[in-house]
Amino acid sequence: MTDESYKGYRGQALSTLKNFEALVWSDVEIKTATGQHIGIILPRSENGDDKHIVIKLRSGYNVGIACEKVEDIHINGRKEAHYQIPEKAFPFDPKKPNVKLLGTGGTIASRLDYRTGAVIPAFSPGELYGSVPELADICNLQTEKLYGVFSENMGPDQWRGTAEAIGREIQNGAQGIVIGHGTDTMHHTSAILSFMVQNSPVPIVMVGSQRSSDRPSSDAALNLMHSVKTAADSDIAEVMVCMFGPTSDIYGLLHQGTRVRKMHSSYRSTFRTIGEIPIAMVDRQKITPLRNDYRKRRDDRNVIINTAFDDRVAIVYYYPNMKADIIDSLIDNGYKGIVIAGTGLGHVNKPLYPALKRAQDKGIAVYMTVQTLWGYVQMYVYDTGRDLMDLGIVPAGNMLPEVAYVKLGWALGQSQDLEKVKEIMLTPIANEITDREPSNGYLIFQGGIPEVEDFISRYQK
Amino acid sequence: MTDESYKGYRGQALSTLKNFEALVWSDVEIKTATGQHIGIILPRSENGDDKHIVIKLRSGYNVGIACEKVEDIHINGRKEAHYQIPEKAFPFDPKKPNVKLLGTGGTIASRLDYRTGAVIPAFSPGELYGSVPELADICNLQTEKLYGVFSENMGPDQWRGTAEAIGREIQNGAQGIVIGHGTDTMHHTSAILSFMVQNSPVPIVMVGSQRSSDRPSSDAALNLMHSVKTAADSDIAEVMVCMFGPTSDIYGLLHQGTRVRKMHSSYRSTFRTIGEIPIAMVDRQKITPLRNDYRKRRDDRNVIINTAFDDRVAIVYYYPNMKADIIDSLIDNGYKGIVIAGTGLGHVNKPLYPALKRAQDKGIAVYMTVQTLWGYVQMYVYDTGRDLMDLGIVPAGNMLPEVAYVKLGWALGQSQDLEKVKEIMLTPIANEITDREPSNGYLIFQGGIPEVEDFISRYQK
Repeated sequence: MTDESYKGYRGQALSTLKNFEALVWSDVEIKTATGQHIGIILPRSENGDDKHIVIKLRSGYNVGIACEKVEDIHINGRKEAHYQIPEKAFPFDPKKPNVKLLGTGGTIASRLDYRTGAVIPAFSPGELYGSVPELADICNLQTEKLYGVFSENMGPDQWRGTAEAIGREIQNGAQGIVIGHGTDTMHHTSAILSFMVQNSPVPIVMVGSQRSSDRPSSDAALNLMHSVKTAADSDIAEVMVCMFGPTSDIYGLLHQGTRVRKMHSSYRSTFRTIGEIPIAMVDRQKITPLRNDYRKRRDDRNVIINTAFDDRVAIVYYYPNMKADIIDSLIDNGYKGIVIAGTGLGHVNKPLYPALKRAQDKGIAVYMTVQTLWGYVQMYVYDTGRDLMDLGIVPAGNMLPEVAYVKLGWALGQSQDLEKVKEIMLTPIANEITDREPSNGYLIFQGGIPEVEDFISRYQK
Repeated sequence: MTDESYKGYRGQALSTLKNFEALVWSDVEIKTATGQHIGIILPRSENGDDKHIVIKLRSGYNVGIACEKVEDIHINGRKEAHYQIPEKAFPFDPKKPNVKLLGTGGTIASRLDYRTGAVIPAFSPGELYGSVPELADICNLQTEKLYGVFSENMGPDQWRGTAEAIGREIQNGAQGIVIGHGTDTMHHTSAILSFMVQNSPVPIVMVGSQRSSDRPSSDAALNLMHSVKTAADSDIAEVMVCMFGPTSDIYGLLHQGTRVRKMHSSYRSTFRTIGEIPIAMVDRQKITPLRNDYRKRRDDRNVIINTAFDDRVAIVYYYPNMKADIIDSLIDNGYKGIVIAGTGLGHVNKPLYPALKRAQDKGIAVYMTVQTLWGYVQMYVYDTGRDLMDLGIVPAGNMLPEVAYVKLGWALGQSQDLEKVKEIMLTPIANEITDREPSNGYLIFQGGIPEVEDFISRYQK
């Protein structure tokens, strides 16, 4: 038996499988103290733990079963998957735009092995062409894997590396950039890239999927097609998130990188533009702008990459009865910047005031955002707000807490002079602060403007 | 000149006013380095700072002007407000239900002095009757002021006191309870009251206003009428938030106390039921239930008041690149419970693992919620989730982070045995965890069920 027979399993999980001679790809019934699970034993990734056996249930869901609970494994058969996608050379058409896909992690596209239900990740142009042949109608595609991390593990190093790769590829003539990314922190990365990559001549489109390709309801292929279409054909030279639209599974939405947030842990239509409407809708044929205030694609513009970042920043999400030690610890641990997500118009309780005064005395940059997510900080309305401004806390308009967090790290990377930092923070770079929020930008983008009605009506005939 | 002439002003603010002989209620033009403000000098509250002069602008907005920036105050006249509402005895009708209104802070109702634009808070039954005479058509009203704090300063002491007052008033025969509360943390208080006050025989309705009564668009009177109507007439014996509905200014929504959150810093329709639909709609004539799974009003049930609360709990709102010191500080500072608001299905980055292990070893209760707000924690899907469960972190279903925070304090008040705490946390008391989230409970309640259509169509004829 080769290593492939227990591919990816280690320690306790490996012993358990060996104990029952249950190889990867076996079709099994696993009995545990709490019930029975029927499915196929899947291989594990390199980063997997050593305490669980993962099986694909008949429902298509994967589930991890704790080894210590396994009482018996009955083997019904074996359905091996071929862990390779037949590569077909991605066609080159000199008339089509060149798009570069940079991978950071997360499954962008994959092929389903129907015999086993296993998901086979696709990433090389040839593999992607094999999985989603429509891509070749849109562009000439090149790919490069920068990282392979779950998005909760993305941080300043990966942000810098991604920004630099974008700059390099634009210099090399890419006419559009797509960035594959796990969905958890896609909006944090889209925000920091909006600051680290400025003046881009071409679209920069982040994409991911909420449901893996082995489920009939997967959004992976559609999101990929929409993002590549946007990178290749759109005239929107902004950092954007391209994900599933809210009202059908036919179109995607393009969200400004600084005004977007993940709003549902499992739905496909999880990314929503906050306090604005999306920049555009996209389907496989067409990109339909919903606004006209975006930066247009231009050949004569040079991208500016600025990756300076001071990571001694934190978000403090206020809750009632919060105590001063939360702030004191940040001060004592050397933080240089704090973004508070306050209640209401930007409030915290009085017991925090002495610690906030100490932060002010230590020269820590403290900014106020709202945890309501929608709406503006307004610190002139109530005494609490005025008190906090006296403590040097700067209202950050309608910047989302996550966006203020990455921008503050970036601003402190540019300068440690608090006045300069403030100037950077309060000068919008990519609509992270806007003058007003449209009423149809609250909670859900429901349409109500002619472009959307036209767009949707095409599918209702 | 009496103290009333500079009512509420102290220190620097008082000196500035005296310097220009600008009394409260003066109609003034204030010149500052950055511009000119025209309006009426308003009195300050007892808790006001001593660095700002507050004036009511012609627009109806109040603004605070920093004394140190004041260059000149020109006085155009004086428009004194009478700081008293003519009391009219609230009529008693033995056929009407008795409702008790408990005040914690925030302006519940008020009368506008039209000459000055000043807001005169109303609270006694007689004052309320003078301001909102419609209340007498609904019930016999009694009032009691428990606290007078901005809602960001509410905490365990006020929660306990409010719960005890509710218990007492129900024992005394109140057929419905209304609680006036500032809007910032109304949802935190409604959540903790859902745990501290159980088995109520009558409705418990929290209410506030987003816009003060001196603005034509105020929601104060309407919210008050709706909440009193609900307390007096509804058969819904739950802890609820009664605030402005989303689609018109005619009706209010009744939100379950554990499934509601403030979602806009300034809009009137800011409170939204999350991951569920509201319990009911209410207007001045009628209460229209949207669900039927609520606890019904019953005369033969005894309320249970349980106010034990351990306040050594905190929310950790995860962000990329979070460092272990955030968790370590909580451990070192003696916290007993931590609610993480993770990304996606409930994730944090690997650098936190050692600190989370330490928390586990110290016997700290750690629960996972999702910062997407909508959707469930699911920690079996990815390796990250399984790793975190191995570190003893308990997934909290679809409990909102704020709700898990107050429930964890309450659970630790009941027991310090982590197994017992877990049993309490994962056993729903007031729908804080539900089996499923209806699709029309995502982001906005848009109707789509016959009751709502019927309800709304009444106004479209």
